[in-house]
Amino acid sequence: MPQIPPDVVALCDYERHAAAILPAPVRAYVDGAGADGLTHRANLEAWARIRLEGRVLADMRGATTRLTLFGQEMAHPFLLAPVASHGLAHGEGEHATALGAAAAEAVMVVSTQAGRRIEDIAARAQGPLWFQLYMQAGRDDTLTLIRRAEAAGYRALVVTVDAPVSGLRNMEQRAGFRLPAELGPVNLQGLHVPVIDVPPGRSPVFLGMLDTAPRWEDILWLREVTRLPVLLKGIMSPVDATRAVEAGIDGIIVSNHGGRALDTLPATAEALPRITRAVAGRVPVLCDGGIRRGTDALKALALGASAVLIGRPQIHALAVGGAAGVAHMLTLLRAELEVAMALTGRRFLHEIDESVICRAQD
Amino acid sequence: MPQIPPDVVALCDYERHAAAILPAPVRAYVDGAGADGLTHRANLEAWARIRLEGRVLADMRGATTRLTLFGQEMAHPFLLAPVASHGLAHGEGEHATALGAAAAEAVMVVSTQAGRRIEDIAARAQGPLWFQLYMQAGRDDTLTLIRRAEAAGYRALVVTVDAPVSGLRNMEQRAGFRLPAELGPVNLQGLHVPVIDVPPGRSPVFLGMLDTAPRWEDILWLREVTRLPVLLKGIMSPVDATRAVEAGIDGIIVSNHGGRALDTLPATAEALPRITRAVAGRVPVLCDGGIRRGTDALKALALGASAVLIGRPQIHALAVGGAAGVAHMLTLLRAELEVAMALTGRRFLHEIDESVICRAQD
Amino acid sequence: MPQIPPDVVALCDYERHAAAILPAPVRAYVDGAGADGLTHRANLEAWARIRLEGRVLADMRGATTRLTLFGQEMAHPFLLAPVASHGLAHGEGEHATALGAAAAEAVMVVSTQAGRRIEDIAARAQGPLWFQLYMQAGRDDTLTLIRRAEAAGYRALVVTVDAPVSGLRNMEQRAGFRLPAELGPVNLQGLHVPVIDVPPGRSPVFLGMLDTAPRWEDILWLREVTRLPVLLKGIMSPVDATRAVEAGIDGIIVSNHGGRALDTLPATAEALPRITRAVAGRVPVLCDGGIRRGTDALKALALGASAVLIGRPQIHALAVGGAAGVAHMLTLLRAELEVAMALTGRRFLHEIDESVICRAQD
Amino acid sequence: MPQIPPDVVALCDYERHAAAILPAPVRAYVDGAGADGLTHRANLEAWARIRLEGRVLADMRGATTRLTLFGQEMAHPFLLAPVASHGLAHGEGEHATALGAAAAEAVMVVSTQAGRRIEDIAARAQGPLWFQLYMQAGRDDTLTLIRRAEAAGYRALVVTVDAPVSGLRNMEQRAGFRLPAELGPVNLQGLHVPVIDVPPGRSPVFLGMLDTAPRWEDILWLREVTRLPVLLKGIMSPVDATRAVEAGIDGIIVSNHGGRALDTLPATAEALPRITRAVAGRVPVLCDGGIRRGTDALKALALGASAVLIGRPQIHALAVGGAAGVAHMLTLLRAELEVAMALTGRRFLHEIDESVICRAQD
Repeated sequence: MPQIPPDVVALCDYERHAAAILPAPVRAYVDGAGADGLTHRANLEAWARIRLEGRVLADMRGATTRLTLFGQEMAHPFLLAPVASHGLAHGEGEHATALGAAAAEAVMVVSTQAGRRIEDIAARAQGPLWFQLYMQAGRDDTLTLIRRAEAAGYRALVVTVDAPVSGLRNMEQRAGFRLPAELGPVNLQGLHVPVIDVPPGRSPVFLGMLDTAPRWEDILWLREVTRLPVLLKGIMSPVDATRAVEAGIDGIIVSNHGGRALDTLPATAEALPRITRAVAGRVPVLCDGGIRRGTDALKALALGASAVLIGRPQIHALAVGGAAGVAHMLTLLRAELEVAMALTGRRFLHEIDESVICRAQD
Repeated sequence: MPQIPPDVVALCDYERHAAAILPAPVRAYVDGAGADGLTHRANLEAWARIRLEGRVLADMRGATTRLTLFGQEMAHPFLLAPVASHGLAHGEGEHATALGAAAAEAVMVVSTQAGRRIEDIAARAQGPLWFQLYMQAGRDDTLTLIRRAEAAGYRALVVTVDAPVSGLRNMEQRAGFRLPAELGPVNLQGLHVPVIDVPPGRSPVFLGMLDTAPRWEDILWLREVTRLPVLLKGIMSPVDATRAVEAGIDGIIVSNHGGRALDTLPATAEALPRITRAVAGRVPVLCDGGIRRGTDALKALALGASAVLIGRPQIHALAVGGAAGVAHMLTLLRAELEVAMALTGRRFLHEIDESVICRAQD
Repeated sequence: MPQIPPDVVALCDYERHAAAILPAPVRAYVDGAGADGLTHRANLEAWARIRLEGRVLADMRGATTRLTLFGQEMAHPFLLAPVASHGLAHGEGEHATALGAAAAEAVMVVSTQAGRRIEDIAARAQGPLWFQLYMQAGRDDTLTLIRRAEAAGYRALVVTVDAPVSGLRNMEQRAGFRLPAELGPVNLQGLHVPVIDVPPGRSPVFLGMLDTAPRWEDILWLREVTRLPVLLKGIMSPVDATRAVEAGIDGIIVSNHGGRALDTLPATAEALPRITRAVAGRVPVLCDGGIRRGTDALKALALGASAVLIGRPQIHALAVGGAAGVAHMLTLLRAELEVAMALTGRRFLHEIDESVICRAQD
Repeated sequence: MPQIPPDVVALCDYERHAAAILPAPVRAYVDGAGADGLTHRANLEAWARIRLEGRVLADMRGATTRLTLFGQEMAHPFLLAPVASHGLAHGEGEHATALGAAAAEAVMVVSTQAGRRIEDIAARAQGPLWFQLYMQAGRDDTLTLIRRAEAAGYRALVVTVDAPVSGLRNMEQRAGFRLPAELGPVNLQGLHVPVIDVPPGRSPVFLGMLDTAPRWEDILWLREVTRLPVLLKGIMSPVDATRAVEAGIDGIIVSNHGGRALDTLPATAEALPRITRAVAGRVPVLCDGGIRRGTDALKALALGASAVLIGRPQIHALAVGGAAGVAHMLTLLRAELEVAMALTGRRFLHEIDESVICRAQD
């Protein structure tokens, strides 16, 4: 079993150690982002730039990070974001991640592109799971995935809507990254993938690729065919957020796909308050993108998020420490959030409002 | 025939490879800019800084990048900007560039300072060409150039108006760049160049050089002597844009000469919205300067441009991959624009308006 | 006796020399900060960013840096901030620091976590001392410390209120810093420290650690049990500042614990004007955090501070030059303040108001 | 005679070459600044940051850089700022500089601290000179200097008022710079310098040094005793500018002493518009600090300056090319200004108003 190095005391330490372990092409895939990586960097910088209003001498007895989301009790507001192909980082793949998540009392959102069958992951997992869904070209295929997730006990559907086409993954392209065949999306086997004929000098994007991309009418259909809570992941515009609420969606995840989709989207910390204002409390809003510190999570909550999702760091921790690494990484975040709540004088998550943020430098 | 290296996946990769191929003085000429290069850098940074409003679940069926400009049908809004002396980058010079442009369905704007005769370029070209005109000291000479371009089938005149004197090309001066005699401006042979007597310790600028520089009255004359659409290139002030429209000009190109003329001019991304507001749709406005990504083009269109021109990258691509490189470079941009339109939910160019731009961080 | 190197002409020179003297883990402890060090860096940058309004030809005869604070006469507005374990930097520890402070006519604030008994420090000190108090889990223990400080002649109590839990000292954790046993907090010997039982995967913060943290009611109690002036150190919110004044507190120290507590708190230069506006002159406001130049002090005074405290530089100076270093460091600051007053035309500290600050670049 | 290297095409090239020629302590003195050099850097950055509004197709026939200042005809608006001890850079010292200035038709302002007698400089100079005056402790001494300057034919008095005490020249202190005895201020020989008794641990600033510093009443006296135009150099506050005008002063030089006096003064480009607004055209306002390009000068003029002074670059040019270097350096600036005027469409200096500056990025 891997030992967690003694100088791993924060999420950035996992990133540093993972960089020394993972092959360069895998690093380019995991840590890379869309095009020039501007949105990825903006995600990180935007949280760091927000200033907190320190408070002193508050009564903190009985403080807790607990919350309830879609009727589910959670010990803290950190979820594992959906990430493809955990096998790149660890031999046990998603099984190890799920073990770590359960140890740290965190919900794991399993990707459609997991390297293990979602039924197997659920069977071995000891904690709650949600299922991330890529809508397929045919509704039958989409329905098959939903029914499998329901049957396996997944407790929510996270529908990724910001990737009808891949972002420009120039970093992994330059590094020559290719997903090993044995780590491919096993859960998509047997599903229909449309074939597009592309002449030289053209891209497939406007040659039919988008004809089968999900549209709002598909979301309305989806909302009808399952009783699971449905969240849309990848909302960055208040207009889309409002439409999602009106479509009966249960929750929204503000996300720019970790900067991997369209480069120069704003940081999620910038989009979040616009979305929460538009949603106005009608459904929970979650957020991911660049959360690396407990203070980042505190800030997201102050801007109206109910919980946050952690993406790349779970792969770093998995590569460095396996299940124990994932659990430890989540424990660090939770402890950091407790410190941040103590030093801003907030006993409960619902006390973390806009007044936590200091506008002094504006 | 040169092979395009497999790690060329974006325009910046062509720049990197070209830097390894071209001699240092040529690089200083091609990649250099005026004085301290502040405007050149500002061009690049200004596009990168603009944030996009991502949209999801839009109906993208039938999406296209097509447009009509001055009655000409175009497959996409990328043109090749006028650049002198392509022979510095490739033995076939402008012929290779024109071949690549045609393969990628792009209009090429041929420079007055091309290294090949404009008639020869037109004869071998398989796609539409425009002619960039430097107005000469004598109107007879200017008229000769216009009549040659008309006769050779050029479809528009792009009059560069921002270079009555050369910018301070300190970078190429330091590198000792000199244009080889055989690559000189063959199209200017036989035309009259005024000779100015300059005493020691003075520059020629205020000693007569400007006496023959083009003035607004020359533009009025020019507008009368040709039926081709006339565009003014190098407009950075709303005052000049308005005057150009009033002078009956057909189009405006917002340009700071790629930062090669007057250093500390603003980025074109900063000047563009001021110009389009002044022009108010009366004529098409085009834009160049620092466009390196499909998202940059999307942003220019959102700020009111009808199309964009690509300068230095055509020379990088030409040096690295010849005609195939130029075609590939344009194909990358076109594919990137399609991705950007898909992820901002815009099916047609005319749907790309100001609402594509996210003002969250303001 | 250590020689002060001839190239030590400013506080940053002491930092540079100390970095070459102190072992890496000690440096990580002394110069390190909380989490990613963003607040520490912000402290330094915020003072540097403020611009001064230079004034000329003022009558500066009779100028002085003298002030009276809590009835105590001071030659200048620089105090030594409370810092733990001076023995890390010098064999004589706090004795050497106190000697240097007295030589430079500066008040030293002795830390609860000093490596020497506060009675011994006071006995050997030749200048005025204040006592920094960490409130203990039991009021009896707190009272014991207060009575000892009173008996030893300390002239004020500085109650640190921003550290009910430790900040995330990732830098010293990575460097493996451990306080040598012989340098431990000798003044806390015999006092009660609560023991918390922490299961694996949890932090102690929300498991009882905060149950004994000081609250406002403890401040009210404290205010009753001593006649010494009581200052609260670590106030960053106007709300807390107002409450402190209403609780009868004698003075406020705007501090973010040198960036060592909660990272991404604002710079003290940003918090200070908000606090002084809320306090509105009812009690003196002091400030620490990133003061490295006489101009920094001038700016703090212009923003409403009565005096400033110097933290890390005292340890740098102590390591490099012992008592002489500390005295010299303070002399540099005082001389720099005199120059700054001369060049902004202010004869007395009370003339240093907001008009010293130039808002030109706003 | 030194050859000007062929890659010297801008003022920054002189700086680069001078750095290779001058000994490190001399470089620390010449290129160094006060304290942390923040104001020096701000000077440079502030000019670079201002954006210009490019204009095209203007009628530039008859354009010129000529101006009249205090009744004196000048070919261009570049003056040489007062700088001490030119002998550090060249064996002929101020004689060489004056020769270069005359060749380039520039006024040279000779420093009180010149290494040559001001009568000798004037006797050998072939162009107009102004005299920079440090007011002395005794009015008799000041008067002696004035009468000598008048007798030698100096045409204006530039009274430096921003240096009643030296700035913190930490850079030259660290480098151990000492002025060689033979380069000392020969023009101050025989004048009275007050001696101040400084106890250990104190600075002389508040111990009498300021008792003899010039005050406004001395300026009123000075204004009475000479018919030469009197300029105050070092004004950074609109309040002082107004007072200077009311005191009958003939001109103001906005200057922060090249960042060598009080660090964190604003850039002169930031102070200049505030001063010109306060002066409102009543007297000419000049400006120095960080002018390195013709565009910088254009911007200063656009913000209301009548002319600009060049400091450090004259020493760089003198070190690299002697008199020829100084002349060439000034010729570069003049040619750059001509280009900048041509590309912003301004024929005369008085046409360079605020509309030259582009506020697009605000």
